[in-house]
This record gives sequence, C-alpha cells and structure tokens, in this order.
Amino acid sequence: MSTPLIARHVAAMSGYTPGEQPRGQRLVKLNTNENPYPPSPAVAAALAAFDPAALRRYPDPLAAAVRRRIAEIHGCLIDQVFAGNGSDEILALATRAFVEDDGSIGYFVPSYSLYPVLAEIRQAELRPAPLTADYGWNLPPDYAASLFFLTNPNAPTSLQHDKTTVAAFCPRFHGVVFIDEAYVDFAPADCMDLATAPGNRNTLVMRTLSKSFSLAGLRFGYAVGPAELIQALYKIKDSYNLDALTQALALAALNDLDAMRANVARIVATRARLTSALRARGWRVLDSATNFLFARPPDGDAARVFNRLRAAEVYVRYFPGPATGDSIRITIGTDAEVDALLGILAQEAP
Amino acid sequence: MSTPLIARHVAAMSGYTPGEQPRGQRLVKLNTNENPYPPSPAVAAALAAFDPAALRRYPDPLAAAVRRRIAEIHGCLIDQVFAGNGSDEILALATRAFVEDDGSIGYFVPSYSLYPVLAEIRQAELRPAPLTADYGWNLPPDYAASLFFLTNPNAPTSLQHDKTTVAAFCPRFHGVVFIDEAYVDFAPADCMDLATAPGNRNTLVMRTLSKSFSLAGLRFGYAVGPAELIQALYKIKDSYNLDALTQALALAALNDLDAMRANVARIVATRARLTSALRARGWRVLDSATNFLFARPPDGDAARVFNRLRAAEVYVRYFPGPATGDSIRITIGTDAEVDALLGILAQEAP
Repeated sequence: MSTPLIARHVAAMSGYTPGEQPRGQRLVKLNTNENPYPPSPAVAAALAAFDPAALRRYPDPLAAAVRRRIAEIHGCLIDQVFAGNGSDEILALATRAFVEDDGSIGYFVPSYSLYPVLAEIRQAELRPAPLTADYGWNLPPDYAASLFFLTNPNAPTSLQHDKTTVAAFCPRFHGVVFIDEAYVDFAPADCMDLATAPGNRNTLVMRTLSKSFSLAGLRFGYAVGPAELIQALYKIKDSYNLDALTQALALAALNDLDAMRANVARIVATRARLTSALRARGWRVLDSATNFLFARPPDGDAARVFNRLRAAEVYVRYFPGPATGDSIRITIGTDAEVDALLGILAQEAP
Repeated sequence: MSTPLIARHVAAMSGYTPGEQPRGQRLVKLNTNENPYPPSPAVAAALAAFDPAALRRYPDPLAAAVRRRIAEIHGCLIDQVFAGNGSDEILALATRAFVEDDGSIGYFVPSYSLYPVLAEIRQAELRPAPLTADYGWNLPPDYAASLFFLTNPNAPTSLQHDKTTVAAFCPRFHGVVFIDEAYVDFAPADCMDLATAPGNRNTLVMRTLSKSFSLAGLRFGYAVGPAELIQALYKIKDSYNLDALTQALALAALNDLDAMRANVARIVATRARLTSALRARGWRVLDSATNFLFARPPDGDAARVFNRLRAAEVYVRYFPGPATGDSIRITIGTDAEVDALLGILAQEAP
C-alpha cells in the first residue's frame, strides 16, 4: 500500500464552486454580481501608461502607494490597512491569523457560501449563526467564535443590518469581527468608523474593488482595522501577493471615487425600477442595499424560474436549500439587461 | 485580561523578509535575481490590446487558456497543471495540501529562505537537510518528510544537482517531492519529465515567469505533476487567484519562448564573463546554473564587500550564517551593470 500524499481533510473536501462564467455575446449575465459599467477612465489611462518593461522588477511587497491612498480615504494610518489579492485572499488569511487549531469560525446562514469552505480548509469548527425567517439579526447573547464573518450588507439576502446593532455587537464579542462590506457602496450606511475608532481592538472592515469599482477581474480587496491585527495578516501573506499592474490600477481607481459613485447611482436607480416591476407582478423582493436583488417568484418555484431564464440565456443565481431555495439572486445589470429579464418573465405571467 | 485575538504561532512569528527593493535611477540592482532585460514584445502587445472594460468581469478561476498553453509546452494534460499567483502561492498551498497537522517539511540548507517561514506558518515540523560543505547532495538514505522542497538549481548556491541523483531520489521518497525549478531556464538540464512521467505519483515541478521571462512584477508561477496532486491544490486555492491581466500577459509570454531564450542567452554570456573576471581576481565562484553567482571574495569577508558595494549603490544579496556568510549572491545584470560592479571591486584590489 502506498503512503497517502494528500492531507486527509483536503482529500475529503469538494472545494468552493464559483458562479458560472458563461461566455457569449448574446447572453445576459446577472449571476455573479459584476458591475455592468466599465471602471473609471482613470483605470484605462493607468493601463495605457503602464510600462511593460517595469514588470521585470518585483512589485512592492507592501503595496505602500495604494495603502497610503486607502488610509487617506478612511482617515487612518497606513499600518491599519491590509491590501490583498481580492477579498478572498484576506478572508483566507484571517482564518489562519485569527483562529487557533482548536478555534471556530462563525458566519450568518444564509450568507456568502465561501465561508464554510474556508473554515473547512482551516479545519476549524463551524459556528453557523442562522438569521431569522425574514433574514434579520438573530445572534444569541452567548454567541461565541474565534472569528466571525459579519457580512453587511449580507448576500444573498441583499439586506443591511442596522449599524447600531453591529456597533453594539462588536465590542461585546470576544473574537475577531470581520465585517465584509463588499457591497457597502450600494448601501445607505457603512461601518468603517467601527474599524478606525481609537478604542477598537477586534473589528476589521473589508472592502473590495470587484463590485462598485467594476474591477472584479483585477483582484483587489483591502481590510482596515487595528494595526496589531493588520500586522498579523502581513506576517503570513505570500511575499508578493499583489502584482505591479494591480497595484497601479487599484490606485488609479481609488483616486477617482466620483466615477465609482456615478456608476453606483445608475445601478441604484435600475435597482429601484426592477424592484418595483417585480413587486407589481407579485414577487417578494427584499429591500436591497446591494447591487443585486433577492427575489421570490409568486409561487416560490425559484428553480423553475432559474431554469427558464437560463434557457433564454439570462443567467441569474439560484441557491437551493431551506433558507434560500424559494428565491433567485439577480445582479442589477444595465437597463437593457434588466428589461430583457423582465421580458422573459412576462412571457410566463398568468 | 483580554482574549488573545491572534493565533499564538502567528503572534510569535517574525515573517519573511523579501530582498530590499531600493528605488533610484543610478543604483545597480543585483540583489533579487530579476532579469535585466524587458519581457517579450508580445507581452507589451498583449498589454496594449487589453480592454480595461473587461476588468468588470471576474477572471477565469481555472485559468484555462494559459494552462492549456503550459500543457502544450510540456506535453501533458491541462489537469496536470496548476497556475498560481507567483510561485510563492503554490509553495504555500503545497504546505497545506500535502502536509497533515503533525506532518513535516524538508528543504536543503542552505536554500530559499522562504521555506522555513512557510513551514512555521503551517506549524509543521522542520526537516532541514544540510548539503555537503561544497553544497552538494547529502540526503541520508532514511531521510523522510511529508513534503520536500527540492530546489534545483539551488539558491543561493547556484548549483544544479545531477538529474540522475534527483531521478533516483523521487520514487524512493515517501512524501511529495516539490522540485522548485525557478532558475532552470539558465541551466543545462531540467527535471520536467520526472513530473510528466506516466508512473509518477509524488513529484511536482514548479516554474515561474519571474526570472527567465522577465516578469517578476506580474506574479505568475505554475506547477506540473500528477492530476491528483494538482487537484488538491485547486481545492484549497483562493477562488480567483489569478487576475485577468496576469492571465493574458502570462499567455503572451508563454507564446513567445524565443524572446525568453534570447534574453537567457545574453545573461548566460554575461555570467561566463563575470565568473571569469572574479576568478581571475582570486574569488571562488561556484559553477552557476542560474541567473546569479554565489561568490566568495579572496579573504572570505563577504559582509565587508557587501557593505562596500552598497555604499556605492550597487546592491547584491548577503546571507549571514555558517553555510553562506563567506559569500555574496550577485544577480547577473546587463554588461554595463556587471562592469560597474567589477569597477567598484577593482578599487579595493590589492
């Protein structure tokens, strides 16, 4: 018999399944919460200005220029900013920096389906925290974990938990609170000041350029919080986690917040229109604070609607299961894309 | 007393120190094994042709196009290729995929100083394997580890172990052999066929675009080997580890092997010239199979030479310690850079 070469828990895993990335000209892709509009023209300019000969050199391992800009935006020190190869990298690092081998990882249910996969990779105990039946805050007073992924606004529900609730929770919690604000630019409020507050010692806020900045393809996320926690992430990251192009383009994007805000405003307007249209047809649509809707068709047969849309080359996301199986998640696309979706759905209206 | 928030082994760590990245026009930078020549013009063309609007979409999580090209180059299946955010990412993933919590990680001493840091992050037992006094192969017949980083050619020694020795070692070893071939394009031989051989079940070969392809700033490395081991790495990687630009530019570079080979030929010629010049001055210079030299000054006072060069803004690398402290590591730069180095050294010749 031969020696097993793969660690047992890895051999037993199935891994995370990202949303489909179908390619094609005609399809309407509303399944992975991408921004329908291009990134800032400043990003295109930075790309055009980038000297390919510079790629022969290693990038700045500490991404100082872009972190300095992030610190400026949020009014904190550069030592309070971690810059990562997408927010995925930061989530994975957090499971190793803030969780002992016998530690535990918590997250809302339903929430981002990557969290339990990361906990499994880390071999940490899972501490899922079910939301209420209508996806509201439901953490028992004695809830404990080494690390809690507090997704706000949450996915796939699209709802934002009240800031006072979050602000009361963080200092009471004994582990690290990791507030994942991937969608926050589409929301009415944010919790960044909980991360930058002088008295804070356990709360990090994470952002990404993937959604509001239209840069999912660039892989850039960042976390802000106490310098001690940020330093722990730096100790264990890959030496050169961010390539030189990503650093340059992320900086350009973060230097043009107006372009991001203009795209967000368009998406928020389309979101209101799609919400009204679906509700008028009898759908239950949650009040979205994100760039997607979580929407239940009148008969609750979300799987059928999902398959019907897919047959018409309109891709949305469907999460089977008790808490999510009656709804579909629809990314807010352009007005034309949303009209295409409504057109297909109208064909089956009573 | 407050709860500790950072995992104990992380709190205790100091982390990896990358080589200095001094910036300046006048300095001669021969300290981090970067290529002195720009990457292929095909990379510049791919950069110019890249549509920034495409960045709004997620990249291909499986990097299929570039992996297909790698499989074509090495005559293997795409399932035998892992593509990573620099070889650093692949090294770190290997410590988690192929090592149990009570497992061990081996590497040559001296070798790449990142390995023990990765083992520390993984909390694995360290199994350092000292080379002979003249940096030759010295693994005892009963040597065992869960994972062995077999760096060939080795750094900082610049020597390549004989392929027959490596080929005999791999099937006998009970863990995973990870042959790090970062420098192999500068060497007379390579071990890729050990990774692609039909009977192989435990050997991976890793390559990087950082050195021979002049793309250290891009962060792209890959590993080739048995599909089962490659799949284990895919299970635990970050969902979107490679951004869209990196995938496009890596593909362009790998489609123009001739440009890489032409730069390698120039570097190998300069290497021969620098080796002769130093030996003529009484230095001991090992026979380099890489893009750097490991060279001992006549009096063995490498620290003094290092500091003297540095004062003249010529940066090389110095690794204090018993096995390496009598030599400096000099990256092969352009002919002009190497002449600048020789000029400074001549000023202190007897």
